[in-house]
Amino acid sequence: MLNYEELSLAYKTPFYLYNFDQIKEAFLRYKEAFRGRKSLICYALKANSNLSILSLLASLESGADCVSIGEIKRALEAGIKPYRIVFSGVGKSEFEIEQALKLNILFLNVESFMELKTIEKIAQTLGIKARISIRINPNIDAKTHPYISTGLKENKFGVEEKEALEMFVFAKKSAFLEPISVHFHIGSQLLDLAPILEASQKVAKIAKSLIALGINLRFFDVGGGVGVSYENEETIKLYDYAQGILDSLKGLDLTIICEPGRSIVAESGELVTQVLYEKMAQSKRFVVVDAGMNDFLRPSLYHAKHSIRVVTPSKECETSLCDVVGPVCESSDTFLKGINLPPLKQGDKLVIEKVGAYGSSMASNYNSRPKLLELALENKEIRVIRKKESLEDLWRLEKECLKGI
Amino acid sequence: MLNYEELSLAYKTPFYLYNFDQIKEAFLRYKEAFRGRKSLICYALKANSNLSILSLLASLESGADCVSIGEIKRALEAGIKPYRIVFSGVGKSEFEIEQALKLNILFLNVESFMELKTIEKIAQTLGIKARISIRINPNIDAKTHPYISTGLKENKFGVEEKEALEMFVFAKKSAFLEPISVHFHIGSQLLDLAPILEASQKVAKIAKSLIALGINLRFFDVGGGVGVSYENEETIKLYDYAQGILDSLKGLDLTIICEPGRSIVAESGELVTQVLYEKMAQSKRFVVVDAGMNDFLRPSLYHAKHSIRVVTPSKECETSLCDVVGPVCESSDTFLKGINLPPLKQGDKLVIEKVGAYGSSMASNYNSRPKLLELALENKEIRVIRKKESLEDLWRLEKECLKGI
Repeated sequence: MLNYEELSLAYKTPFYLYNFDQIKEAFLRYKEAFRGRKSLICYALKANSNLSILSLLASLESGADCVSIGEIKRALEAGIKPYRIVFSGVGKSEFEIEQALKLNILFLNVESFMELKTIEKIAQTLGIKARISIRINPNIDAKTHPYISTGLKENKFGVEEKEALEMFVFAKKSAFLEPISVHFHIGSQLLDLAPILEASQKVAKIAKSLIALGINLRFFDVGGGVGVSYENEETIKLYDYAQGILDSLKGLDLTIICEPGRSIVAESGELVTQVLYEKMAQSKRFVVVDAGMNDFLRPSLYHAKHSIRVVTPSKECETSLCDVVGPVCESSDTFLKGINLPPLKQGDKLVIEKVGAYGSSMASNYNSRPKLLELALENKEIRVIRKKESLEDLWRLEKECLKGI
Repeated sequence: MLNYEELSLAYKTPFYLYNFDQIKEAFLRYKEAFRGRKSLICYALKANSNLSILSLLASLESGADCVSIGEIKRALEAGIKPYRIVFSGVGKSEFEIEQALKLNILFLNVESFMELKTIEKIAQTLGIKARISIRINPNIDAKTHPYISTGLKENKFGVEEKEALEMFVFAKKSAFLEPISVHFHIGSQLLDLAPILEASQKVAKIAKSLIALGINLRFFDVGGGVGVSYENEETIKLYDYAQGILDSLKGLDLTIICEPGRSIVAESGELVTQVLYEKMAQSKRFVVVDAGMNDFLRPSLYHAKHSIRVVTPSKECETSLCDVVGPVCESSDTFLKGINLPPLKQGDKLVIEKVGAYGSSMASNYNSRPKLLELALENKEIRVIRKKESLEDLWRLEKECLKGI
C-alpha cells in the first residue's frame, strides 16, 4: 500500500501520480485482444504525452497516434519508431506536413480534399511519395458528450463517403501520393459498442470497393475512443470490440490500426491534493484544496465527475455533504459537488481519481500557477517523470521582451 | 492602418496582438471616473498577466489584484509597487501567505475564518502584524454566467456578514492582525450596475458598524467585474459606476480600491490566425484555422462568442454560412458557429476580436501545441512581448526525468 502521507512529505502537493504497471496492463490488454491478427496499437498522445509514459509504451512496441508535429516529436523523443506513427487532425499546417513527411512516419490521416492537395504539393517539392490514409466520417451517432463526438456529419472531422472515393482516386493517380489506409473515428469516451461496429462495417465495405478500384490498401485504422468507467458505467469489452472489428473485415487482408488513449492511461492516474481550508457558507460546506481547474480542467470543461477519496486515516465519524473546490478565482473551479466527506482538517490529503487522461495534457498556467510535478509508480518504486514548473518558467519568454528592464 | 499581411509575414500566425494605447486609455478612464476621491486601481492580473502589459500599467501607477504568489511576483517583476498589491483568493497556501507577508504587500483579502487564523499563525512566526481585508459575500445575484458569478451564498467566495463581523473582532483583538479593509466582488463580465451598487450599499453599511466597533478601516475594496461589450451589449458607464459607489460611501473616509481586469484589456486584444483549409461536409461549410482551443479557451469553456473578421481584402462577393474551427482534436474546438464569411483560400487572415482578457492567460499546451507569440502595438510600433514557446520547452521538464536516456 502506497503511503500518501510520506509521499506528500517528500513531494509537495498537488501532484499527479501514475501507476505504470496499470498502464502496461491496459496496453497489453489491447495487444491480447487483437492477438493472432496483424495489428498495430497506436497510443493516442493527446490523452497524456508525458515522455516517460511514451517511453514505457515504446518498450511494449506501441505506435503513436499524433495530432501535431509537437506530438510526433514527443513520440520520437521517447523512442517510438517512425514507422509506427500516424498523423491525424483537421488542421495540419504546411510546416507540420513537411516535417512529418521528412520524418518518414507511417502515414498521414487526411481530413479534407484541400489537405490532400496540400500534401501532394509538399511531397512533390520534397520529391517523395506521401503515404496517406483518408478519414471517413461515417455519420454515426457515438452517443457521447457533444464536445468529443466526432463522427456526425455536423462535426468538422473526416469526409463523407462520396468525397473519400474521389480523394482515393485522385491519390491513386498522383505520382506523389500513396493511399494505403482508410480511417474512421467517431468519438471519445464511447461506452456503446454498436456504433463503433456499425462504422467499422460501413468503412470495411468502402475498403472493399477501394480495393476493387485497384487501390492498394494495407491498413484499416479504426481510431480510438473506447471509454473508461468514471462513474461505474459498464464499459466495452475489448474482446468483443476486437472480435466485432475482425468480423467486419472478413475477406480483407488489412493490418488493423487501433488508437486508444483514454483507456490506456485514465485509470492509472491520481491527482493528490491537500485540504487548505474548510468553510461554511450558511448551510453549505466547502472544502478548499490546493489543486485547481488549471491543473485539471475536465470537471469545468466537460462537467466530468471524478470520484474523490480521503487518504488520511480517520476514526469513524459522520460524513456530511460538501463541494470540493480549488483556489482558482472562478466558480467553475469546482471538482465535485455534493460529495459526502468526513470532517477534514488542514493538510488532510485527498485523491482525485482516474485523472490519467486529459489531465496534465490539458493543464494551463491560469492564475499564474505552475504546472504540476508528475510521479510514476512502477514496480513499487516512485520516481519523478516531470519536474514541477518554476515561477520563473512562467514568464521567461516575457521577461526577455520587457522594455527598459 | 495596421497591415496584417506584412505582420503575418514577419511573425507567423497564430499570434496575439494587443493595442497598448487602448489599454492605457481604458486604465485612465477608471482613474478619471474616481478622480478627486482617494482611490487605487488594482489591475486584476488573472485577465492577462503579460509582463509588458503590467509594466505599462505600473507606469500609470496601477496597483495589482493578485490571486497567487505567481501573480504577486509577476506584478513585482513588472515594477508594480508592493504597497499597491492586494492578494485575494479562496485557497492561499501557507507558503503563499508567508511569501506575501514577507513582501510587505498592501493587504490580504481573507475568504474564511480558517484562513484568517492561518494568516495570524504565520504572522506570529514572522513576528509581524499582517494587514488584512475580509471579503464579504453579499448574496446578490450578479446576473452573469454561472461560472463567473461569485457573490451568491452557494459560491465558494467570501464569508457572510455575521461571520465577517466575528472575523473582524477576532482580527482586532489579535496582536498579529491588522484589519484595514472590507472587500466584496460579485462576479465577472457584469453588465448591470444595480447589483454592484446594492452590494456596495450593503457592505458600506457593514463598514460603518465596523468603524463603530473601533476597527480602523482605511480601504473599501469593491472588486472588479465590470463587463465589456462582446456582442454589442450595453455596458456599465464608469461615471455612473464610480458615482454610485461614492454615494454609498457618504460619511465614510475610506480609500476606494477597484479591481478591473477584463475591462482594461479585453477589447485591446486580437488573435490573428490564418485559414488552413476550407471543407464542406454535406451542406455544412467549415473554415479550419491555425489557432485552436488551447490558444483561446473562452468559446469552449464559456460558450463565449467573439466576432471574427476577414483581414485579406477581397472583391465584393457573396458570403455563406460557416463554422470557424481550430485544429485541435475535439468538436469543442470551434471558435464561432454560423458566421457569414466570403469564400476563403489558404493563407487568408482572420482576426478573432476582443481576446485580450482570459485569452493567453488561460492558454494550454493541449495537443502539444506551444503557447503563442504575443505582440504589442504602441505608438504605431510593433514589438514582441512574449516569444513563441519552442517544442523543446514543452518537454524540457520531462526529458531530464526520462529513464535510461
